[in-house]
Amino acid sequence: MMSVDDPLTVTCTAPVNIALIKYWGKREEDKILPLNPSLSITLDVADLRTKTTVVASKQFDRDRLWLNGKEHDINNKRMQTCIRKLRQGADDLWRDGKLMIAKEEWKNYRLHIISENNFPTAAGLASSASGLACFVYSIAQLLQFKETFPGELTTIARQGSGSACRSLLGGFVLWESGTALDGSDSIARQIATGDKWKSLRVIILIVNEQQKKTSSTAGMQTSVQTSDLLKFRAKEVVSMQLSRMRDAIEKADFPTLATVTMQESNQFHACCLDTFPPIFYLNEVSKEIIQFVHDYNADNNDITVAYTFDAGPNAVLLTREENLEKLMNSLHQKFGFFPVTREGVTRSVFENSQSDRIIRSIVTKIGEGPRVITRSIDHEESLATKEGKPKFIC
Amino acid sequence: MMSVDDPLTVTCTAPVNIALIKYWGKREEDKILPLNPSLSITLDVADLRTKTTVVASKQFDRDRLWLNGKEHDINNKRMQTCIRKLRQGADDLWRDGKLMIAKEEWKNYRLHIISENNFPTAAGLASSASGLACFVYSIAQLLQFKETFPGELTTIARQGSGSACRSLLGGFVLWESGTALDGSDSIARQIATGDKWKSLRVIILIVNEQQKKTSSTAGMQTSVQTSDLLKFRAKEVVSMQLSRMRDAIEKADFPTLATVTMQESNQFHACCLDTFPPIFYLNEVSKEIIQFVHDYNADNNDITVAYTFDAGPNAVLLTREENLEKLMNSLHQKFGFFPVTREGVTRSVFENSQSDRIIRSIVTKIGEGPRVITRSIDHEESLATKEGKPKFIC
Repeated sequence: MMSVDDPLTVTCTAPVNIALIKYWGKREEDKILPLNPSLSITLDVADLRTKTTVVASKQFDRDRLWLNGKEHDINNKRMQTCIRKLRQGADDLWRDGKLMIAKEEWKNYRLHIISENNFPTAAGLASSASGLACFVYSIAQLLQFKETFPGELTTIARQGSGSACRSLLGGFVLWESGTALDGSDSIARQIATGDKWKSLRVIILIVNEQQKKTSSTAGMQTSVQTSDLLKFRAKEVVSMQLSRMRDAIEKADFPTLATVTMQESNQFHACCLDTFPPIFYLNEVSKEIIQFVHDYNADNNDITVAYTFDAGPNAVLLTREENLEKLMNSLHQKFGFFPVTREGVTRSVFENSQSDRIIRSIVTKIGEGPRVITRSIDHEESLATKEGKPKFIC
Repeated sequence: MMSVDDPLTVTCTAPVNIALIKYWGKREEDKILPLNPSLSITLDVADLRTKTTVVASKQFDRDRLWLNGKEHDINNKRMQTCIRKLRQGADDLWRDGKLMIAKEEWKNYRLHIISENNFPTAAGLASSASGLACFVYSIAQLLQFKETFPGELTTIARQGSGSACRSLLGGFVLWESGTALDGSDSIARQIATGDKWKSLRVIILIVNEQQKKTSSTAGMQTSVQTSDLLKFRAKEVVSMQLSRMRDAIEKADFPTLATVTMQESNQFHACCLDTFPPIFYLNEVSKEIIQFVHDYNADNNDITVAYTFDAGPNAVLLTREENLEKLMNSLHQKFGFFPVTREGVTRSVFENSQSDRIIRSIVTKIGEGPRVITRSIDHEESLATKEGKPKFIC
């Protein structure tokens, strides 16, 4: 048997995903079943990722969780649901042809989960999706979780945080709304790899935020209760947009992908405004960026850049590699210089932002799903000490 | 016969109207036939009005138009349509039992039309509605226009500027979308007088505008072409909201009227955002006012104030007389002091606005339709000199 001195551990990463077809509104709250299907791209973990180390031991007195160096309560309903379902699906652990832990033994093990993002959680970058995806994926890896049907793991991540299910896969990911009452068909699956879209570049513009943010969970609930437009959108508009976008992905047709992405973003925010009382996520800077994109495309007489906004004022722009430099120059000209983080190319050209509207930006691309970094506690990438505690505490 | 020395003249006023059920989108451009019915309240001409003097003479060489002291080209298509139709419906003019002008004679008379608003045109207060209504009403009065069916005059005003048809009546006015191809059933009619709503107060908040405004005509066209939500709204939502509001008007039920008014305003702006490229009329101050109203109602545990916004950032608030003072105090506390114009009560308490967000406000109430002020050129209210020229030129 194992002890803390010889711990069972795994360290994994999971990516951030950005919805091009938006998820807004649940048809069922508890299981997090969405009103409509959504479609996302997975971003490169080299630029944005959650990393999680899980350590299992019989000697721990309870499950514990540390996020970004600070202990958090693990006893919230959603995380408890995930852990329970992961334990139910645990399987025998074999090493070198020897049964180390029989599946019925796992219930005697407690988990220490240590998780970190390499981007500021406060930046409004949907850290819950990569966070919950990494949480579920890492525990599944450690407990030898065995799916009873394809996509089961994504249904577990979904119950932790809806859009987390999309972070379990790379490339273009479709989250089905499903029709089953138990949610077993509301799975996420890859509909295309990023192979045809290697030149796609994703620019995240972190915007100076003045307003308070309405939480997605609360916002969605009010929208479902009060917005007639949201119901119509889910029922009539999304399937049409989804089919246009899948076609564009297949054909590597950037202008159509870009157009549908912008229309989807606008319609999501329109439904927020049709909510009563209305929800505003876009601020004046967001609106300026939208105007900038439409002007830029009009000036170039071609659709070479698109915007999309989630439940906050930060913009995500899509463009192609060959247009990146020109676009960044135009952005700097319009908004003033802001620091650019770009893997392997530039890092913080300017220490401080000279823009009062855009604080900084991250340039990234389409990427792969979660992966195991190491199964050794001694590995430098592990976030845990030999005792199963976080290496870094805030 | 008449000469310029003995001119044929009339001076009329017409009111501003504010849509509670919004008009956005035409099913036919030329005749200005709307996608959906709309409902407005007519404001008191004591506070906001257009005044128009029309002079007819055989000695004038052409039709001419002066707006707020400046000559404007009268040869635009919409105004020409109105004048042509008004001339077609002209009737015999009798004075003291004597036929002065036979109806077929009117074609030999040219018109000088002199028009003024008592509020700044640039304030974004939908001056085209009261302006066109006054234009049509005054000419009709002068030419003895005779309707061939009830509401015909509103169909003419509609072709000058859609919402102008609603300014031809007082109280609560419904503009029917109609189904006839010639637009003859797209008329405006009074559905209730203001009798049950004497205590209603309307506060117009003029907001500091930073952005460029998209013209309503252009904006509507793009919305009809690109917004799925607008089509759904026109087809499915408006009739339901209209029926709720008519019921509230009948029962003098302020909370329901207020709720539907706010929902309508939000849904109209949601459809603007769903337009591609999106149209933004609300700015940060508008959003602050919306938040203020929801907070105010929540604090009072009752719906005592409502907002509505047209194609611009200015707010129109509805409340009841008994709540007015408390509400104005709260607004001043929240936004800083701004000048208040209120008939018979206060006029410019503060010379200059101490608010950087609200420039000034006008407090008014529900009012009557257009009326004739005088048929004499010598009357002090006449805007014309004896020669049929404007008294005041800018």
